[in-house]
Amino acid sequence: MLTAIRYEPGVLYLLDQRVLPAETRWLTCTDASAVADAIRAMVVRGAPALSIAAAYGLALAARSGADLDVAAALLTDARPTAVNLRWAVARVRSAPDIEAAAIALHADDVRINRALGAHGAPLLDGGVLTVCNTGALATGGHGTALGMVRSARAFGRDVHVWACETRPWLQGARLTTYECAHDGIPCTLIADGAAASVLASGRVQAVVVGCDRVAWNGDFANKLGTLNLAVLARHYGVPFYVAMPRSSLDLACADGGCIPIEERDPREVAALDAPIYRSGKVSAWNPAFDVTPAGLVTAWVSERGVEQAPFDLR
Amino acid sequence: MLTAIRYEPGVLYLLDQRVLPAETRWLTCTDASAVADAIRAMVVRGAPALSIAAAYGLALAARSGADLDVAAALLTDARPTAVNLRWAVARVRSAPDIEAAAIALHADDVRINRALGAHGAPLLDGGVLTVCNTGALATGGHGTALGMVRSARAFGRDVHVWACETRPWLQGARLTTYECAHDGIPCTLIADGAAASVLASGRVQAVVVGCDRVAWNGDFANKLGTLNLAVLARHYGVPFYVAMPRSSLDLACADGGCIPIEERDPREVAALDAPIYRSGKVSAWNPAFDVTPAGLVTAWVSERGVEQAPFDLR
Repeated sequence: MLTAIRYEPGVLYLLDQRVLPAETRWLTCTDASAVADAIRAMVVRGAPALSIAAAYGLALAARSGADLDVAAALLTDARPTAVNLRWAVARVRSAPDIEAAAIALHADDVRINRALGAHGAPLLDGGVLTVCNTGALATGGHGTALGMVRSARAFGRDVHVWACETRPWLQGARLTTYECAHDGIPCTLIADGAAASVLASGRVQAVVVGCDRVAWNGDFANKLGTLNLAVLARHYGVPFYVAMPRSSLDLACADGGCIPIEERDPREVAALDAPIYRSGKVSAWNPAFDVTPAGLVTAWVSERGVEQAPFDLR
Repeated sequence: MLTAIRYEPGVLYLLDQRVLPAETRWLTCTDASAVADAIRAMVVRGAPALSIAAAYGLALAARSGADLDVAAALLTDARPTAVNLRWAVARVRSAPDIEAAAIALHADDVRINRALGAHGAPLLDGGVLTVCNTGALATGGHGTALGMVRSARAFGRDVHVWACETRPWLQGARLTTYECAHDGIPCTLIADGAAASVLASGRVQAVVVGCDRVAWNGDFANKLGTLNLAVLARHYGVPFYVAMPRSSLDLACADGGCIPIEERDPREVAALDAPIYRSGKVSAWNPAFDVTPAGLVTAWVSERGVEQAPFDLR
């Protein structure tokens, strides 16, 4: 199985997702601070993968006798939008054995993804449009939205992935295509601007995306470009599904208005440093996520099944 | 005035738009074949600019006594979607003095853009979302959609440009920002996937785009990503305008179904040449344009005024 996170007692290995597919390079972290740096720098990304990396980061802190308050704050604050990060840090911290809890959280994530995939598989047949990377590289293994695709194919469904390249980090172009090639999943990469054309052409039967935080009413934050796809799917009458591990639910959020959206360095979008830009009238806006209202979602698929919002919180 | 096309008898100078804004490099063409190569290679782009370059290309052929049939076919076939290209070649070819006709066509284009801009200016105030580059660099000068912005600002309107970066060639990121910086027009660059977020935020009061070919019923082809913006504008209740020089009208097209859409090399979208892609199950789809149905357009703005489809063909 494709994996991006490996742990040995005292050492966390992270596959550097910034240089895939050109290079397979592993980063070695031996303390929580290095893990937080790797999270901030996008070495590891994807809400479930962030939760696992952060859990192992706290395990490294616990092993070395570092201050757990400091380590937990460092890891939790590394990126603001994915709620899984704070959920995972809180979960392992409350366990009697932090390292064992981190290892268990990683294993649970794979089990949750497989359950989610099995619930979602019957919804998919034909073209599936997606954004960013939501596969094994974004999780502990298998994946969420791309996990649904894997499960559907395992069940014999003829699923073809349409992958938005997902600027500015190109997670679709670099990571989703890589995973599809790795597993032999048919996949066509498109520029983000081609999403409407593919939908208009009738080649997409479902749009499936991941999520970084879901409010109780079903509004959710996910990779920038998700809201585009949700509006387009509605216009073209194509169902729009959110692959939602229950750990992405933020019960403190009544709706999407309270989800913090990380704004990243404008230089990720474009180098506006040529002399002509010195007037300062030209800039860039680089939110990492957008918020899609629940009204545009057909269903949320979790490890419990195909759900509707507002969610049953039992 | 910013210009990308300069002609001296026997020599056509084209600003190489592939390397802007990092470099200002001029390409020198002395025959029609070099002009056709430059058009294919994206040295010059934008429907009106293509028409001017092609007209000068035919003038170069005429001066050197080259076969005009061959030169005309070469120039016309360089790119298939923009109807202006064939219109311009036919127009100058039928003139008694081809070189004088090409020079006149260039001057006319600037006049047409200024007239179009003056008609469109009253429609704009506040945030204007656009795609690709439709300014001086895409035309003989002033621009079409960005020309409307220039005119609106000249009339004292407080217009702010939101520029989609426009993958894969990044004409928005490289050229629209460059023009805005050059003229002091306030401009914020966004990833193509951020269009829905900007619209949802209420910061956009109009979407304005150019066109490469318009059918009689108002369906039109334009840079990939235009259809995304049209659907989003409708969803968010924002007016959607097409800046349409009348030379973009193709009377032979009843509707968008007959507009040929250029598909370019998949390698422009992504380098899928790492060993892992050798299975051949992963590919890329790279249409240069999309077709937006007339029903999503609020109005078409031409040098004659603010128009509605189907168009008055007198």
